[in-house]
Amino acid sequence: MNPTIDLLQAHRSIRRFTDKPISGELLEHILLAGQAAATSSFIQATSVVRVLDNTARTELVELTGGQKYVASAAEFLVLCADLQRNNQQVAAQGEDANFGWTEQFITATVDVALFAQNMVIAAQSAGLGICYIGGIRNNPDRVSDMLGLPELVYPVFGLCLGYPDQDPEKKPRLPLSVIVHENQYQASAATGEAMQEYNTVVKDYYQRRSSGKLDFSWSEQMLKQSRSQSRPFMQEFLQKRGFLRQ
Amino acid sequence: MNPTIDLLQAHRSIRRFTDKPISGELLEHILLAGQAAATSSFIQATSVVRVLDNTARTELVELTGGQKYVASAAEFLVLCADLQRNNQQVAAQGEDANFGWTEQFITATVDVALFAQNMVIAAQSAGLGICYIGGIRNNPDRVSDMLGLPELVYPVFGLCLGYPDQDPEKKPRLPLSVIVHENQYQASAATGEAMQEYNTVVKDYYQRRSSGKLDFSWSEQMLKQSRSQSRPFMQEFLQKRGFLRQ
Repeated sequence: MNPTIDLLQAHRSIRRFTDKPISGELLEHILLAGQAAATSSFIQATSVVRVLDNTARTELVELTGGQKYVASAAEFLVLCADLQRNNQQVAAQGEDANFGWTEQFITATVDVALFAQNMVIAAQSAGLGICYIGGIRNNPDRVSDMLGLPELVYPVFGLCLGYPDQDPEKKPRLPLSVIVHENQYQASAATGEAMQEYNTVVKDYYQRRSSGKLDFSWSEQMLKQSRSQSRPFMQEFLQKRGFLRQ
Repeated sequence: MNPTIDLLQAHRSIRRFTDKPISGELLEHILLAGQAAATSSFIQATSVVRVLDNTARTELVELTGGQKYVASAAEFLVLCADLQRNNQQVAAQGEDANFGWTEQFITATVDVALFAQNMVIAAQSAGLGICYIGGIRNNPDRVSDMLGLPELVYPVFGLCLGYPDQDPEKKPRLPLSVIVHENQYQASAATGEAMQEYNTVVKDYYQRRSSGKLDFSWSEQMLKQSRSQSRPFMQEFLQKRGFLRQ
């Protein structure tokens, strides 16, 4: 359709980077692109911690589950949902602030994701590769201590940025017929023939990518995930930090 | 820097659209761009309900707080976080599914936001305007009933798409110095001089945009928000739908 749509559709995560640094000017433009994304009720709930310290980077590799590119990428940013800043504005006007509801947890988290995705597109348009690091939530307490995050700030994900040193295949997505509904949600879409075909496509993709070592479909991958506990400490962590109050 | 970064930085929400429809081909490319965004642990938790029915559109104007462009935009999409599909895959393999943890609520919500922001950039690159509709969460029960959303699916936001019939000013964002931190979060960034200057900029913006009727700074806007209850029913709604189980 056009070069921007081509760029969007061509996304792959990059996990190996060259040594080339990102210029200060480009990084600033990427951050400004992030900020330009929509923000719910103008709350502007994104804060970015840029991790420059090498010792901290190495520690973060461990804390995120051994992902070495957290240290080797030119930049590693921690994207935080931040209602502390909004709180401070209210306190400075002499009132007790009232942030931290579940609804505000949603808007703050969405704000961060929209901001980050704009950064990602800006970065990719300038030839950079990226990888989101959800593993930042493996040890949210320790990460928060390390970065000095106050109450009402939590690390949503990390973001590796750098010049790519690999050219991986695009990962196949669900058929549109499975995920797009007209007027009414159709539960049957997820169990029909299109899903069966997709499962074959995913199996082939993993086989190809792993030289035969990985052998599962999307449905089988979801079964595996369902069997494991998914960061079961998260609700308690968030409540301790002032989120999900009600 | 380049045309894509220029596009990203030029974002404004559009709330008045022409009658021109969006071609099926363009809409498909926008959806494919959405799908190409990163997805946490490959959960692909986004479902899109495309609302074509005019009666439903009119009802949604009311349910989202009287935003008329929900009916007048060429397309209105409801972006849903969907773990039901993942659930179904597990059930079809004869096991009880284990989705719905707080952690999975985060990943599903982030998935939807990344998907949506890719759609937004694709749309804008093709000359369309967009407006996110957080008001879809004003009446999440009624919206869910109307669209037939099953358990473990919730409407995160709506999205209006259409050809713009207005050219609003860009809304000023917080200074980068307030939101970007190096190694350690600096709480003092949000109360310094840069914030005071920004408050003046926001006040001027609202004055200009409203011909003098609106008169508040960002800090004052946050105080107003803090005084009001923010969809206090959200936690109960989400738990009823199977989210935030622990």
